[in-house]
Formats: sequence, structure tokens, C-alpha cells
Amino acid sequence: MEVKILQDVLKANDAIARDNEEKFAGEKVFALNMMSSPGSGKTSILETTLEKMGKELRIAVIEGDIATTMDSERLIRFDIPVIQITTESFGNACHLDANMVGKAYAGLPPKPCDLLFVENVGNLVCPAGFKLGTERNVVVLSVTEGEDKPHKYPLIFRTADCVLINKVDLLPHLDFNLERVREALLAINPKLIVISLSAKTGEGFDAWLDWLREGVKNKKARS
Amino acid sequence: MEVKILQDVLKANDAIARDNEEKFAGEKVFALNMMSSPGSGKTSILETTLEKMGKELRIAVIEGDIATTMDSERLIRFDIPVIQITTESFGNACHLDANMVGKAYAGLPPKPCDLLFVENVGNLVCPAGFKLGTERNVVVLSVTEGEDKPHKYPLIFRTADCVLINKVDLLPHLDFNLERVREALLAINPKLIVISLSAKTGEGFDAWLDWLREGVKNKKARS
Repeated sequence: MEVKILQDVLKANDAIARDNEEKFAGEKVFALNMMSSPGSGKTSILETTLEKMGKELRIAVIEGDIATTMDSERLIRFDIPVIQITTESFGNACHLDANMVGKAYAGLPPKPCDLLFVENVGNLVCPAGFKLGTERNVVVLSVTEGEDKPHKYPLIFRTADCVLINKVDLLPHLDFNLERVREALLAINPKLIVISLSAKTGEGFDAWLDWLREGVKNKKARS
Repeated sequence: MEVKILQDVLKANDAIARDNEEKFAGEKVFALNMMSSPGSGKTSILETTLEKMGKELRIAVIEGDIATTMDSERLIRFDIPVIQITTESFGNACHLDANMVGKAYAGLPPKPCDLLFVENVGNLVCPAGFKLGTERNVVVLSVTEGEDKPHKYPLIFRTADCVLINKVDLLPHLDFNLERVREALLAINPKLIVISLSAKTGEGFDAWLDWLREGVKNKKARS
């Protein structure tokens, strides 16, 4: 019975995700689902990304959190369309779903955009199970979380297209082997793009910005 | 319909949690539910705790993870009863539930213990909703996760009895104000015991070990 209900929920979600996908395709928006543990630095990565390419591309953000508008307040200074979903009004949901994202997208100021970031609720488990209609999944893993995370949370890394290994500025103070983690990630998902960076220092951002440019270009090229 | 099913699931879980609670009371075991984001350092805290008081108290551990036995393997060297729950065999569950814990406890080597740690799946959201029958909830928050976490994940801090602020050895390299976070935690939950420590250096462990001793002593005193 529980399993049946869950299947129905996922099926309904998938249908709305397909609607979102069509909407993004029609408007040629390259949309990304950003997932990670709480505190891995998703919002900090968005801030540094906006500093570096906010004038080059038209960027919009949908922020997901259980409570507070703290994240969207951090992005207001960039004068971009940003909207906050707080899931406490959806039974404290531990992840975003396609319906929330579709409604939030419709509520964004009516401004065309090239690149849409959907920042999911901080959670390395549940968001992986719910499609949003975004084109790519980006998972942020910070070096302070330890080398074992790809092994212990395989699903989210299996569904990812790109993994950002963040906070590399802290590597000198930690016991974390980047190369070993990269290998573990690629063993789980050989197609992964793995980029090491620091939202604090800007180190490693060139590869990430290039990956974003490429995605936007490809999206525009498709009719 | 979904809400009804969820209520039934929680009701069934609560009944099993009460059975676990009676079992722990009967055997005078002080049982703790350890919760946090992935990589906050729950297992490292257990390692340092076992180094410091493994000979003083009889300690047992139930480890919860989605996949792998990596955490329980880290604890084997202490020669204590430890059992691993991998929730991938329970539909990749994002949290432990009372049934898993009851079964795991029954499966622990038949050795009396004073103190039982139940290390939950790394997740700052879902574990808060499921009682396990443990006496106290301990939430670990590491300083690398940022000051905003108590505001953004209020439920887990509201249900906590003790919060361990871990990785304080990294404070010189971060922008994290301990006092501000302590105030935020106490605003959410005025009864909280907040202890700052480092599992790496052992700093701050005295207060934590005293809190554990007190809990064990009180448990023994009750019939």
C-alpha cells in the first residue's frame, strides 16, 4: 500500500517534470538542479558564479529551503530574478518537487533567462528521487564532508551530470585526497564531469563557467 | 490519502519506538539517537569518545547508513558490540526507524551495555520525524556547515536535547561565530545543551563525556 502510494506520487511528479522540461525547452532555458548536503556551499557557488558571469548571461534562481528566505536574500544584490520556495508550507518536505518548481518558475519576474539554477533543499538523499524537469543535475560535495560520501550516498552521484568538489581552499587543513574521491565518483558514474573549486577564493571556477557556457550554447542551438 | 498513510506509518513507528524504550529501560541502557548532515563527524565523535571512555563504560553502537559498512569498520578496533544497518535494503530509506533499530539491537552480541549510540543516516531533515525509542537526541553541527543551519533546519534542533558543534579546530580558517550560533540554537530550543568540540583534537570533550556519564548514572538510578 505504501509502495503503491509512493509510486503514484512519483508518477504524478514525473508528469509535471515533463511539463517543466517542455517549458524550459520552449524558452531555451538551460536549467540545473543543484543538490548537496546542508552547508556544502551551493549558495556560495551561486554567488561567485553570479559575480563572474552575471553580466555575461541572463541568470535566474529558484531557491529551495525548508525555512527562511536567507539564501534568496544573499542573491538579491545581483539584481536577478530570484524566488524562494520554503517547503515548511509543503509539510516540511525534505526535497523540492516538480510542482513546486513549476509554480516558482511561473512566479519569477517575466524576464527571459539563459540559465536557471534550482537550488534544492540541503539533503544528500531525498532530492535524488524527484525529477524537477531540469536538464542537468549538479551535486556539490565539500572537502570537509570526508572522502567516504560517494560510497555512502551512491544514488545522488549516480543521477548527477556534474559534481563540484567545493572548499578546496581548506585542503591544507584536512585529510582529504582529491584524486581518490575523483576516482570513487567516476567508478560510480563514469560519465560524470568532476570539477574542484573554491567559492571562497574563486579557484577552479574557469572549468565550471565553461561547462555552464557550453550548456547554454547547446540549449540555444536546439530548436 | 497520502497524509493518512503517513500518519499510519508514524503511528506504527511510534508503537515500536515505545517497545524499544521499554527494552532500554528494562536493561538500563542510556540510548542516544545521533543525527546530523552527512560528514558532520558523527563517527569521528564516536571514535574519540570510545578512545576516551571505552574502558570506563560498556558502550555499544548501531550504525545507520544507506550503503556500505565503512562506519562500523572504523569502530571494530575498539572491540565493542557494533552492528550496521544499511537502509538500501529498506528502499534506500533516508532515516532509521524504530523497527530497524529494534531488530539491530536484538542482533547485537548479547553483552550488557551502559550506553548505546544509534548513529542515524546523514540527513538534517528526515531523521527528526521518526522516533527510535532512544532517550536523548543528539545533533551534530560542524562549523564548516555555516551559521545559518539552525534557522534553516529548525525541526531537528527543536527535537534535540544536546547539540555538539564539531570541528572547532577549523575555526581559524572559517567565518563562523560560535556565540551567535549558540544563541540561535537556544532561541529555537532554550533547554538545549550546546557543547563545542573537536573530534580531531579532543578539545571540548570533557563536557560531552560528563553529559554522557550523567545520563548513564541517571538511567541506572531509575528502576
